[in-house]
Amino acid sequence: MSNTMSRIALARRPQGAPLPEDFKLVTDVRATPQDGEVLIEVTHLSLDPYMRGRMDDVKSYAPSVDLGGTMTGQGVGRVLDSKAGGFVPGDIVTGMTGWASHACLPGAEVRKLDPALPPSTALGVLGMPGLTGWVGLHTYGKPKAGETLVVGAATGPVGSMVGQLAKQLGLRTVAIAGGAEKCRLATETFGFDAAIDHRAYDDAASLRAAIAEAAPNGIDIYWENVAGQVLEAVMPLMNVHGRIPVCGMIAWYGGANIADNNQLPGIWRSILVKRLQVSGFIIFDHWDQYPAFLKDVAPKVAAGEIAYLEDVAAGLDTAPEAFIAMLKGGNTGKQIVKL
Amino acid sequence: MSNTMSRIALARRPQGAPLPEDFKLVTDVRATPQDGEVLIEVTHLSLDPYMRGRMDDVKSYAPSVDLGGTMTGQGVGRVLDSKAGGFVPGDIVTGMTGWASHACLPGAEVRKLDPALPPSTALGVLGMPGLTGWVGLHTYGKPKAGETLVVGAATGPVGSMVGQLAKQLGLRTVAIAGGAEKCRLATETFGFDAAIDHRAYDDAASLRAAIAEAAPNGIDIYWENVAGQVLEAVMPLMNVHGRIPVCGMIAWYGGANIADNNQLPGIWRSILVKRLQVSGFIIFDHWDQYPAFLKDVAPKVAAGEIAYLEDVAAGLDTAPEAFIAMLKGGNTGKQIVKL
Repeated sequence: MSNTMSRIALARRPQGAPLPEDFKLVTDVRATPQDGEVLIEVTHLSLDPYMRGRMDDVKSYAPSVDLGGTMTGQGVGRVLDSKAGGFVPGDIVTGMTGWASHACLPGAEVRKLDPALPPSTALGVLGMPGLTGWVGLHTYGKPKAGETLVVGAATGPVGSMVGQLAKQLGLRTVAIAGGAEKCRLATETFGFDAAIDHRAYDDAASLRAAIAEAAPNGIDIYWENVAGQVLEAVMPLMNVHGRIPVCGMIAWYGGANIADNNQLPGIWRSILVKRLQVSGFIIFDHWDQYPAFLKDVAPKVAAGEIAYLEDVAAGLDTAPEAFIAMLKGGNTGKQIVKL
Repeated sequence: MSNTMSRIALARRPQGAPLPEDFKLVTDVRATPQDGEVLIEVTHLSLDPYMRGRMDDVKSYAPSVDLGGTMTGQGVGRVLDSKAGGFVPGDIVTGMTGWASHACLPGAEVRKLDPALPPSTALGVLGMPGLTGWVGLHTYGKPKAGETLVVGAATGPVGSMVGQLAKQLGLRTVAIAGGAEKCRLATETFGFDAAIDHRAYDDAASLRAAIAEAAPNGIDIYWENVAGQVLEAVMPLMNVHGRIPVCGMIAWYGGANIADNNQLPGIWRSILVKRLQVSGFIIFDHWDQYPAFLKDVAPKVAAGEIAYLEDVAAGLDTAPEAFIAMLKGGNTGKQIVKL
């Protein structure tokens, strides 16, 4: 057994959209687990939009990745060696392994997976993105039967969870996605009542007209994953007492690729006159709900009542490219790297 | 007794800031109360920023004033004639009289005042503005002892209520007001811990530095009355899990007199990474809390534990001028017109 490991390091802080040169594949000597730790051989790695924020040297809700440091992220893998109680070699586990072939983690920060489900589900539909959709919809979306929900990035792992849960609760669900194929998946795989291809519209006004047609009773919940032109299109369609859980804003992660006009006064006015509740939230505040989420959703996934899609890249060295493409909407479903 | 009445009508819809020519003093034949109505001789009229919105022909939370129609508003007055049970001539009452010398209103929409308190308090500290501050702070601000609150338009009837209630609950309170005299009133009359004259700063960055000094532990509650440059200054100082009740945005009522740069992405990012709760609200949704408000606050006003300031203009014909000045911050305290 080789005593080396591979990892993807942050080589340079991106300006706007990340480039391949911002990452570097590094080979190191593999660490040995200390007391209380397990050594994991990573089999699946999660790529998520929030990682873009970690690449900046800006104060945020979590520390930045240092230059030369391993890109952070959740992984799934096999225990190779354990000095932590409760783990033995061969266990399938998940934890914050980073973008790496191997990781030593404290046993307390590692969770054993149910072998009855595909291990990659721990990164998507039953992982952080699934929990994000579940917690956010219930806590901040406050869905009620008969209402209308609009969600951007609707075939992504968060958006598809939100849409399916809302549909099961009796809401009308409208997907916004990029491209005809994602729109097809939104309605056929995830059961959205309507799907709108935002790429088919040149400006916010024409996008708004299409959304208005799909949401004839207005919008009660706008699940904010994307911001940018979708936000501008949606805001005037919000109903009184509408809710906007702010979960992400992928259109703005690369910087200010936005129209010059200042939308803020109009949006602030909508918040006031429609008495909207705009709630930023970060899933790291809600890990305590993870057991309740698994208890509710894992059986539904096992029974096929909650669908999920995965987009799998092959090999750790493809992670940067897959990540860059994902930020541009190039993936379909939860982006995973299989090592 | 003359059989005429005077009223201020909307003569023209303003473009941006209202002008005197947008209003017209009209003399009409006085109406006679029908069954169930009372005829009120108005003694005090309330001027409030929300009235600016009613002058536009734009869908909002309440109907626009029609061209030629009487400007809406709350008044206090004396019952001259009553065909409604429970009212007799001489009663001191309040209701939505509009900007007028007399009004016929259904008895069900009129409330008798406690004669132990000055009648004008029903328009300010114990009226809609006071209720707005009280409801909004408790419902959306969720104040906790030891936190820091920042409020714009801090010597106005809403801001001064919010500041005093928060101070009594053990928060550090920071006033933002226009001019040295209002800053003095904020600390001396309303007990704010610090007061900042926003007119003394050229840009959002220098204003922000001053606020940061007055709020060394960051901001937990930003009470939004003003928007514009104050919002831009405050947002980066918000603490994680901060709350922003959106009560008004007087800086933007006159239209887009704002910087060209698009602040929205930065503000949206703050909402996300700091998990802020931004809550638009309109007091008309909360009238049911009026009795609880009066029960709590009226004794404190009577005992001098809640201070208030009134700025009184003399004569119905001065109402347009006083209103125009108020929107520019020219008044000090609750703006009232004494007829």
